[in-house]
Amino acid sequence: MPREVYHLFSGGKDSSLAALILKKLGYEVKLVTVTFGVLDNWKYAKETAEILGFEHEVVKMPIEILEEAAEMCIKDGRPGRAIQFIHEKALEFIASREYVERVSDGTRRDDRVPFLDIRKARSLEDRFNVAYIRPLLGLGFKTIRELVDDMFVVKEEESEKLEKGDYETELREILRKKGINPRSIFPPRHIQSRVIGLR
Amino acid sequence: MPREVYHLFSGGKDSSLAALILKKLGYEVKLVTVTFGVLDNWKYAKETAEILGFEHEVVKMPIEILEEAAEMCIKDGRPGRAIQFIHEKALEFIASREYVERVSDGTRRDDRVPFLDIRKARSLEDRFNVAYIRPLLGLGFKTIRELVDDMFVVKEEESEKLEKGDYETELREILRKKGINPRSIFPPRHIQSRVIGLR
Repeated sequence: MPREVYHLFSGGKDSSLAALILKKLGYEVKLVTVTFGVLDNWKYAKETAEILGFEHEVVKMPIEILEEAAEMCIKDGRPGRAIQFIHEKALEFIASREYVERVSDGTRRDDRVPFLDIRKARSLEDRFNVAYIRPLLGLGFKTIRELVDDMFVVKEEESEKLEKGDYETELREILRKKGINPRSIFPPRHIQSRVIGLR
Repeated sequence: MPREVYHLFSGGKDSSLAALILKKLGYEVKLVTVTFGVLDNWKYAKETAEILGFEHEVVKMPIEILEEAAEMCIKDGRPGRAIQFIHEKALEFIASREYVERVSDGTRRDDRVPFLDIRKARSLEDRFNVAYIRPLLGLGFKTIRELVDDMFVVKEEESEKLEKGDYETELREILRKKGINPRSIFPPRHIQSRVIGLR
């Protein structure tokens, strides 16, 4: 009986590496990319999912969540709390499906956000009766770098230039629609990555 | 060029599972069991290392460390701080070797001790210029249980009955030598595990 794990996936190197580790552990990995329907940037995640050879699903979440996240950004003047909020809602959204027994993501030890502390991680597991698996949590940046270099061809660029299937892209867009320059919220040199090939 | 990782190993299911995950990630895994020369319980770890097919080394650490740990047990009336102390010293002992670039262990999300918080983990990496890898850190008990059941034949018994190559065995012995009943320090129903076969 294959063990399915539903893995939040942006097409970036962290969520890609985590997916490959889950596969090596024997799980049947189902990639899930979240969208709010504002942009079609989920298609970049779908491209990477195809390159990696995993099943991929795009899940539409209520726009109200993105709206609430945008308000957090505006109030705080920075995106941390909003990204955290969206990530928790995305995990809950997937975990709440009746047939889902395992959820996972590519969050790592050195991430500030998104990150679930042990209390939140256990709460997610208990409320939805799932296992929450974070393959990269015990890995530092050196280890992640060498594993990524081994396995992937990666494209790296500034957040605003690189098309990627993550929350940030739609969050920037909704801020623009509200007349707010995302550069006033997001750090200017935030480098993002996207996996464009397997080695 | 193979990437070597020096992995603290007791023969228990956690350190065995972590070793197998490291191998799946492409690392050349060198198992290391620590002894203080009080008992020869490292031989149980060596047996398990052979079953798993890994290189194994027994490293003798200064008895002063075990003495200091015993004092902590006596002072505290419980073993937590002493186990933590020995584990940190063991990691430092391995990491301080000139040729060691990576150290690892089987510590997990739900462990109270031994456990290095993010500040201590980064400090270990910075002081010794190593990567510190914890393959189980992002896994909860359900996930560890299903992976262990998949991969290993495990023997489980109370700490005092099961012969194992961990710190606790020698710590109990040195307490006995000091005329102290280890049962006054260690919880009575602490179940330990040892891997005795591969599936």
